[in-house]
Amino acid sequence: MTTGAAPGALGRVDRAAVAAARERVSALHAELTRYGLVAWTAGNVSERVRGADGTDVLVIKPSGVPYEHLTPEGMIVCDLDGRVLDGSGSPSSDTEAHAYVYRAMPEVGGVVHTHSPYATAWAAVGEPIPCSLTAMADEFGGEVPVGPFALIGSDAIGRGIVATLAGHRSPAVLMRNHGVFTIGADARAAVKAAVMTEDVARTMHLARALGAPPEIGPRDVDALYDRYQNVYGQR
Amino acid sequence: MTTGAAPGALGRVDRAAVAAARERVSALHAELTRYGLVAWTAGNVSERVRGADGTDVLVIKPSGVPYEHLTPEGMIVCDLDGRVLDGSGSPSSDTEAHAYVYRAMPEVGGVVHTHSPYATAWAAVGEPIPCSLTAMADEFGGEVPVGPFALIGSDAIGRGIVATLAGHRSPAVLMRNHGVFTIGADARAAVKAAVMTEDVARTMHLARALGAPPEIGPRDVDALYDRYQNVYGQR
Amino acid sequence: MTTGAAPGALGRVDRAAVAAARERVSALHAELTRYGLVAWTAGNVSERVRGADGTDVLVIKPSGVPYEHLTPEGMIVCDLDGRVLDGSGSPSSDTEAHAYVYRAMPEVGGVVHTHSPYATAWAAVGEPIPCSLTAMADEFGGEVPVGPFALIGSDAIGRGIVATLAGHRSPAVLMRNHGVFTIGADARAAVKAAVMTEDVARTMHLARALGAPPEIGPRDVDALYDRYQNVYGQR
Amino acid sequence: MTTGAAPGALGRVDRAAVAAARERVSALHAELTRYGLVAWTAGNVSERVRGADGTDVLVIKPSGVPYEHLTPEGMIVCDLDGRVLDGSGSPSSDTEAHAYVYRAMPEVGGVVHTHSPYATAWAAVGEPIPCSLTAMADEFGGEVPVGPFALIGSDAIGRGIVATLAGHRSPAVLMRNHGVFTIGADARAAVKAAVMTEDVARTMHLARALGAPPEIGPRDVDALYDRYQNVYGQR
Repeated sequence: MTTGAAPGALGRVDRAAVAAARERVSALHAELTRYGLVAWTAGNVSERVRGADGTDVLVIKPSGVPYEHLTPEGMIVCDLDGRVLDGSGSPSSDTEAHAYVYRAMPEVGGVVHTHSPYATAWAAVGEPIPCSLTAMADEFGGEVPVGPFALIGSDAIGRGIVATLAGHRSPAVLMRNHGVFTIGADARAAVKAAVMTEDVARTMHLARALGAPPEIGPRDVDALYDRYQNVYGQR
Repeated sequence: MTTGAAPGALGRVDRAAVAAARERVSALHAELTRYGLVAWTAGNVSERVRGADGTDVLVIKPSGVPYEHLTPEGMIVCDLDGRVLDGSGSPSSDTEAHAYVYRAMPEVGGVVHTHSPYATAWAAVGEPIPCSLTAMADEFGGEVPVGPFALIGSDAIGRGIVATLAGHRSPAVLMRNHGVFTIGADARAAVKAAVMTEDVARTMHLARALGAPPEIGPRDVDALYDRYQNVYGQR
Repeated sequence: MTTGAAPGALGRVDRAAVAAARERVSALHAELTRYGLVAWTAGNVSERVRGADGTDVLVIKPSGVPYEHLTPEGMIVCDLDGRVLDGSGSPSSDTEAHAYVYRAMPEVGGVVHTHSPYATAWAAVGEPIPCSLTAMADEFGGEVPVGPFALIGSDAIGRGIVATLAGHRSPAVLMRNHGVFTIGADARAAVKAAVMTEDVARTMHLARALGAPPEIGPRDVDALYDRYQNVYGQR
Repeated sequence: MTTGAAPGALGRVDRAAVAAARERVSALHAELTRYGLVAWTAGNVSERVRGADGTDVLVIKPSGVPYEHLTPEGMIVCDLDGRVLDGSGSPSSDTEAHAYVYRAMPEVGGVVHTHSPYATAWAAVGEPIPCSLTAMADEFGGEVPVGPFALIGSDAIGRGIVATLAGHRSPAVLMRNHGVFTIGADARAAVKAAVMTEDVARTMHLARALGAPPEIGPRDVDALYDRYQNVYGQR
């Protein structure tokens, strides 16, 4: 990713849509702090804004800026190769990974990255979170899978996320020795997935300290997942 | 449960009593977030409003609405078969379970459901929380029991709750692989039971990590329970 | 303890001193919630007000009242046998234990009771918290000791507290299967001891999960305790 | 360290620089409470102010003062032998350790001390936190090392900190049976290191409860450290 905005580069994207995404992305970081998913500046939210002719852009947190200083104007707009199009400053150092996901998964509209403690503990031992909770069946449709160890600075993290999520219904992946990436139809859905990942990572960690929690059978998992995805919430 | 309010269906229930229950139910959700019992939208409170001629109704959280957006007007009123009588939108997807409890247990005036983490960890391993704390004897009159695994979408959860609580003084049941349901004389009492369930679930989890906490003998449990139920608080 | 204020019973105690103690005791409960030491209404603070001719009184939380509803006027004033002298309503159901401590330990000016989770976990297994932290040497002068199991409703709890603390420098005692009682020169000091008890109970619980933390030698404990009691803070 | 300000002792230090450091040091304590690193008054921040002719001073928290009562004016200014130069009251009882670090490590501009619970648990068992997280490679360049057990009241703590940090890239040291000291280019950087120390201490504690987390290889650690120190954040 490079910094320095290319003037006029937002040409085919609706300005109002970008402004609305800036508002949403900036505000949603408050959920990361509210739920204790992040320490200092280590976590970020992005959202895709679809452009005419497929020239989508992403709106993402600036790098190293404290959460309480975030504003809609401070968010950075990048193309899907991670080049800055609008905004003063550097985008999140995880922009490459977000951008890779948007390029590879057209249905994804939001991406979140955290080092939330319980989920990252599972990532550190490289073990998927087994599906022993109805809330996991609802939200993840099964276990939360583990992705590879990958260094920042290339598309290795992005590739690892996409390769892992391709084989699962889960909107979350535990990247080995690193942390969590989640996806969603929009930024809010990806944030919800990040909150639920930490929630079930914690409950399953606590359960394992008590004994061996039985997993829910695959047919029951399917029934729960289908119902939750189709019935839950307001229509 | 179905949506779509039947006009005039509140006929035999006092409007002021419903309005007061809307206020209480809406406000009590703040205790679930304050005590960390819920993540995102996964937990709900309801209260029974007694109608003339036994036509009771229940007031419950709408489905999938964030806690900070709850208002008294946003609560949903259902009959005890879970049909919406008043309110715009869908009631909690757990309404069937709440309604079943109110039908089967006439003395119950409030029901709460959470996935609070420590209590749900005990539920995930399917083990009752043993009574090694005077606070458990006070509030639960013994251990916190475990109910069956049951899928949402029928009256299986409701039946499981009622069958388990029938044999215990405990106002809380740990539903296997799922979470907690609590009952009370009103919504506030059920919320208190939910708070205390997580509190003792946590303390007993921490105790078990240190060793084998001895249980309190049944005669002492009875003495503590009787005193707490009859002497504690303001008369 | 009995309710119903005896008129004129505050005769030999300074009204302004009682009013100031009401303010302090009411406000200090906010520290119990701030540090997560209490759930719902399960914890209380009291302070002694010294009267002429030895007719001391104690100011304590009312029973079962939520912390956010506490006011100076709502506090209850009792004599050292736990009889209500001033205030409308019942005092904390733990008043007998507080009163016993004040009768038996004339140097004590404040008492606090909580079921704070980590400390109560040590109490549940009946094990003292070993002194492996300089902060424990500073505040407790050694381990945090364990007192007997005792039922509420007689002076058994008070006797257990006093008998245990008599042999220790610790201002805190872990009452088996129950919770924590702390003492101090005034209510604020007892609250500090309750906060520090939970803090070291947690750190030592976490340490034990990692391995076997070595204890600090008795001579070093003495040196730390002496220095902290005499040098720390503002003169 | 001694108390009692030497009049005119701030002679060669810029008054405005001292005033700005007072503001920063006072305000940064709020991060210690926000992240749960401190209980009651047990933690402190200091910052070096560089003077002409090498007559540096340090600005530090007063001893035993609650965090919510801290003000810029309440901070204490000391020389690098810990003697009070400006401010009414006693400086933190850890001032000697801070001062020793500033004397021995000229590049250090900020020092923080806490007893944050997870990090102090590792300190209690005397085990370094192994580097199994990319966030550790980023911030610490490897494991978080353990320093010796040392009593307060001499330069033993300061010597232990400096001797341990001399051999590591880590800005944090776990002092045996005691707690954490962190350093940084300024007070804010040292506070960030304290926050990250607790964050990774917690995640690694949780990981170890699940299994044996593999460490990141030294070449990968180096690559991550170099990139983070040089690329992360705003230029």
